[in-house]
Formats: sequence, structure tokens, C-alpha cells
Amino acid sequence: MPAIITLTTDFGLGSPYVAAVKGVILSINPDVRLVDLSHGIAAQDVRHGAMVLANAAPWFPAGTIHLAVVDPGVGTLRQIVYVEIGDQRYVCPDNGLLSRLTLKATPNRIIAIENREHWLPNVSATFHGRDIMAPVAARLSLGLDPNQLGPRQVELVPLAWPEAKIGPQEIVGSVIWIDDFGNLITNIMADMLTRHGDPQPSTIEILGHTIRGIARTYGDHPPKTLIALFGSAGHLEVALVAGSAAAHLAAEGGAAVAVNLRPWPLTPGP
Amino acid sequence: MPAIITLTTDFGLGSPYVAAVKGVILSINPDVRLVDLSHGIAAQDVRHGAMVLANAAPWFPAGTIHLAVVDPGVGTLRQIVYVEIGDQRYVCPDNGLLSRLTLKATPNRIIAIENREHWLPNVSATFHGRDIMAPVAARLSLGLDPNQLGPRQVELVPLAWPEAKIGPQEIVGSVIWIDDFGNLITNIMADMLTRHGDPQPSTIEILGHTIRGIARTYGDHPPKTLIALFGSAGHLEVALVAGSAAAHLAAEGGAAVAVNLRPWPLTPGP
Amino acid sequence: MPAIITLTTDFGLGSPYVAAVKGVILSINPDVRLVDLSHGIAAQDVRHGAMVLANAAPWFPAGTIHLAVVDPGVGTLRQIVYVEIGDQRYVCPDNGLLSRLTLKATPNRIIAIENREHWLPNVSATFHGRDIMAPVAARLSLGLDPNQLGPRQVELVPLAWPEAKIGPQEIVGSVIWIDDFGNLITNIMADMLTRHGDPQPSTIEILGHTIRGIARTYGDHPPKTLIALFGSAGHLEVALVAGSAAAHLAAEGGAAVAVNLRPWPLTPGP
Repeated sequence: MPAIITLTTDFGLGSPYVAAVKGVILSINPDVRLVDLSHGIAAQDVRHGAMVLANAAPWFPAGTIHLAVVDPGVGTLRQIVYVEIGDQRYVCPDNGLLSRLTLKATPNRIIAIENREHWLPNVSATFHGRDIMAPVAARLSLGLDPNQLGPRQVELVPLAWPEAKIGPQEIVGSVIWIDDFGNLITNIMADMLTRHGDPQPSTIEILGHTIRGIARTYGDHPPKTLIALFGSAGHLEVALVAGSAAAHLAAEGGAAVAVNLRPWPLTPGP
Repeated sequence: MPAIITLTTDFGLGSPYVAAVKGVILSINPDVRLVDLSHGIAAQDVRHGAMVLANAAPWFPAGTIHLAVVDPGVGTLRQIVYVEIGDQRYVCPDNGLLSRLTLKATPNRIIAIENREHWLPNVSATFHGRDIMAPVAARLSLGLDPNQLGPRQVELVPLAWPEAKIGPQEIVGSVIWIDDFGNLITNIMADMLTRHGDPQPSTIEILGHTIRGIARTYGDHPPKTLIALFGSAGHLEVALVAGSAAAHLAAEGGAAVAVNLRPWPLTPGP
Repeated sequence: MPAIITLTTDFGLGSPYVAAVKGVILSINPDVRLVDLSHGIAAQDVRHGAMVLANAAPWFPAGTIHLAVVDPGVGTLRQIVYVEIGDQRYVCPDNGLLSRLTLKATPNRIIAIENREHWLPNVSATFHGRDIMAPVAARLSLGLDPNQLGPRQVELVPLAWPEAKIGPQEIVGSVIWIDDFGNLITNIMADMLTRHGDPQPSTIEILGHTIRGIARTYGDHPPKTLIALFGSAGHLEVALVAGSAAAHLAAEGGAAVAVNLRPWPLTPGP
């Protein structure tokens, strides 16, 4: 079974940057399996990269090496690290790219990548993805002992995420990511509701709109209905059936979302 | 020769969804060849997906497995199917995604994918591409007998396509797809004209513009000329030389296109 | 080690064209390694394709075959060529796609691809990427002697590039490409300044803005600072820290950039 290296970058589609990274890796290990994870991370958006890694990387075979380059601090003092979380391996800048993964699991090992022996001979100040991370990932895929990369590091740089607030009658969170369908992914997780013993909340409010109840899936309601549901990774999502909730609501990242846990008042008859 | 699985989705480029599908497949068959066919299908646009599959899949080696996930009905009663057409194999929702392929060939076999034994243990209501179709495709690539997936199914759900109307003096059709160059692909096929014994029509009309004759290729006319030609799959296309016909004409899918088959009147001299 | 074919096209993401090329190649050589280099070249923009090839292809293992299809002249008299530059191999239209690579190295061999024996049996007038270039690249990857493709050709069609003008006190160049980060890549190269023995110029002017000095990397200045720096391929770039210089300056390709080599006047005290 060949080693696998996945690539996650904010390089976009019209540039030579992704291709240069691939070329460097294949020049060192022509037998490695390269898998494009995403090159559509928003420019320099570490949180976007962290969301994609957290929802994709754990599905890969044990030992897969995930090379992630969303690196606004390239050439500055930020560290480049090798990290093991669960049975997956990561090579990336230490800037919070792994911060959604480390919510769920403590890294087994963190190495500061400092040993220049495994880098390209000439390292530019602006493209460490090509000059440091690609050759390091390629050599790891050939069996290099990670301890050869540099010294142990105790912890990763933290990256704060907006956290949902859980009150007795409501949970207030926010949109942390918008997918290509226009679904609004929030930081309100399914288990926050079950902790209340009330997995079927009465209403969800977002940007002046009120949604009643939680749908099971997208197709359960008529087209153009605004719905809320728990997506495949456990996040509460707001979606528009057969449309884009983001466009419909003119919603952006950070928009507030409230889940009302109070039962509907039983209106007494007059 | 390793088995090949191609991927066609409307997941876009900035999401973890494509990557999760790849991870599930590689976790089951790390030796399979993954080929990205397209992840740029317009969101929930089954017709777009059907056009891309019909023009791409038949070019692959016999036995290739095409996993196609454009699935607005995910989690509802729509069936997921395994289908053999020609020498290619498909795993997709039964929603019309194969409707351009079945115009040309009757499926050799259709199986309703119902046997949960080959799915992921936990199936979400919103991501059957990852939880059902990916593991099924991966197991097929390892040699699983398709009959193990579920019972035979007699036919696929039909999806209506706008059809060109062939009259004695004109053929009236419509734009069914616009490619990334802005070429307007119509449902008027080359053989509809040859059936008339008149493969060189006099004029083509679209959105108030009149084009004389059929060009052989894009570069045969000066830049910014509006031309009509038969594309590489036999569809009549309207194109702008060195530009975008879609932008030039403000054309959208569904725009009417008429091919005038009458000879030009011979104007007698005064 | 399996042969590698990379793909560079302007086909975009929502079309079947890339996939058809992949299918044709894999049908001829199912064991070849396909690597997507970029399918985001701007439509029919040969210069964009040339920039991407020049900055990506040389990083690949020796003998890699680069299939590049940016082909506004498809079906016309433009030649299709096989070219060896350095240790890399190219199959593409002879329209300037290799013109950035040949700035640095003379081709070792140029072959006019004329022998139809190695093409698909039916060649369309509009899709030579699929019908000619894909099968030729696939057969080369199986070991076909390039001399079987057609006769030697003496030189490639030239493509003029705007050239920076080097004066005694300033270098005047222009933006030749804008990457997905909005960085403005110019035709002013690092060695043009060192030739002056003055690698630290006093000011850079673009679109009415003046930038003092050359930064080492993007993160060395506060967010939203407009900076100039030499990118990873030696081009002078204008960038906005944590933002898009293209959006900030409303800059387009061709915008003039001047590097002022005069030392700042020493203002005498009053």
C-alpha cells in the first residue's frame, strides 16, 4: 500500500503554487499517492482550513500525511510543525490549522520542524509550502522518523473559536462556516441539545427569521423552505431547500443563531 | 491494472465533502485510482451532472466505476443505484443523473443499493455520498459482486429533457448547457440536420441574432464573431470567437435556438 | 516508478472536457500517474498558461510529460508540438505556451505532431486536447519514441512578452499576472536590481501609490500595508498584507510598475 499525502491549501485554481508543491513531493517520492483535499480555502483563512481538515482528514487511512498550507505568517517567526492526532499525521504551520481537530483529541506528538537537512537547499521567504513542508512530507512518506525533523514541542498555538453559549432556555451560537451550497454551518452541536434532554427545540432564530423545529434532511420540506438540521458532522445548519440559505438571508460568517429550548406556550382557550 | 473510481459532485471546492468521500474510499481500498471528474457541477443541478457524465464517462477504460453525487433528495425515498451502461459502471442516486447516457444505450443491469452490510455503520440523513455511495464504490473496486448490493431494479427514474422540434423548414431547440468558455450547447444534434440531407443550414437564430452557416471550428473566423458549430460531442453550439457567447448575448440555459433550413431566396436582378 | 502526465488547461471546473482527456489517457495507459497542474487558466489566455507552466513544470521529476491545452487556435493551422526543455517534456499547441520556459533554456528537441497513427481514429475540429494531445501523451508515457510523432521542427512560434525597461535611475515594468491571493506579479526580476548593485531600491510606484523599500515576506508588515517583495520565482510582486493588492488598487494585468533606484536625497538641516 503506497503512502498517501493529501493537500489542503488556499492557493486557488489558477496559480502554479499547488503544482509546484506536487512537483517537489513527486521528485522526492514518485510513488506517493497525492490526494487533493481542497485548494479552495479562502485566502489566508485559517479557520476555514481548520474546518475542512477537521471534517475530512479523520476519514483517511491510518498514517495518511496531511499537508496543509494556509500560511499568512510565512517567513515570520511562526513555527512549522509535524503533529500526530488520532491515527493521522499533519505537516502545517503552527497557526491554529489543527484547532478544530484538537478540540476532540490531544495530539500524540508535536515536533517543531527545524532541521534544515530535510528541506529544499534554497528556502524562499514566501513559499514554505514548497520549500519546507513539501519535502518534509515527502520524506516522511518514505519512512523518515519524525524525530529527525526537530525537537519535541509541548503544545500548539491556540486559536480561539467563537463558542455557543448554553442557557437554560436557549443556546446562542453563530455561523462559523458557509459551504458551497450556501448552507450556514454553526457552532451549535447536536450534543448541546441532547444535554438538555430536549433534542427537538421549539424554534431557531437567525437574522430575523424563525424556523420551527429541526428537519431530518434537506429534502423533507418543500423547495425554498428555510430549515434547520444537524449536518453530517453534528453541527446545526441553516439551509434553504433547493437553494442557498446564505444568498436568501444575505448571511455572512459570524451571524448569530439562537435555538429556543422553551416549549411552545399552551395557549388556553379564551 | 488498478481499479479506477471517478468522482463527479456538486460539492464545490471549499468544502470537506469531496475529501471525506475520498477518505472513505481510500480507507476501504487504498490501492484504487481516484480520478476527479468534476466537482463544479452547479448545486443540485442534476441536468448539469448528467451532461458531464454523458460526455466524459464513456471515454474511460472498461470497468471504471463512476461515483456521481448530485443528490438534492438525499435522505428521502429516492433510491441509490448501481448501473451498468456500455462498459462503464455507475453508483449514484436514481434521479436522472444517467438520463443522457440512457438516451444512447439501455442499461445492462440496474441494482437497487439496499443491503446495508456494505455501507458505513452509521448513516447520516444528509450525506449518503460519504456514508453509502463511497463505501459501496470502494467495495465494488475490490471485486464485490454487484448482486450483493440489493435486488435488481427494472428501470431508472426518467428525467425529461427539452427536445428539439424538427420541422420541414426549421429545427427549433434550446440551450441545455453553458460551458466554462461561455459556449452555448444546444439540444440540436448534427444528425438532425443530416436527416434532412442539408447539413449546411442557411441561418441560425438566437436571441435576436442571426448567424449564417455552420463554422468548422472556433478559430476559423475573426475574433468577436458570433458563430455556430457542431462541438466535439455532436451538439450544435453557439460560440463567440475569442470570447464568451453567454456574456455577449446575456444568454441563459433554456434560450431558444432556431436552425433555418430554407435555402436563401435567389433575388432576381432588377 | 510509473510515468507521470500533468494536465494544464483552461477548461474550468464544470465541464466534461478535463474528464474526457483523463479518460482517453487512462484508456491507453491505465498505469500512468495523472496530476492536475491547473484547470483554472483564464479562458484562451496563453500567457496565463505560460506563467503557470514556467513556475510549476520544472519542479517535477525528470521525464514528466506536461500536457497543456490552452488552444484558441484549435482546428486551424497552428501546429501541435512535442518539446523537451531541461529534463521535462511537453505536449501542447505551438502558440507560445512554452514561451516563459524558453526564456531560460533552449529546447533540446521539437517535434511537429503530424503522424495521425498515434491520434484517436476520429479527430474533431474543436477538441484536439482529447483527440490528438491526450493519446499522444499517453503513448509517450508508454515509451513511444517521440521521433515517431512527426518531423523535427526548428523553432517554436514566438510570443512577445512585455519587457521591463532598465534605465540608470529606474526600472519600468508591468503586471504580467495576478495570482489568487490578489498579488500583482510583475516582469521585474530580482537580478535586474542586483545588476545595478542596488538590490534595495528606494521606492516602488504603482497606480499612484508609493511603496518604500522591498519587504522580505508578506507577514513582515502590519495588515493592510501595501508592500513590494520578490516572490518565490524571482518576480517583483506588489502585495497587500492580509488582503488583496489587486482589489485594493483595482489593478489589472498590464498596470505599470516603476522601481526607483535613486537614493533618497539627504535633506540638509535648516
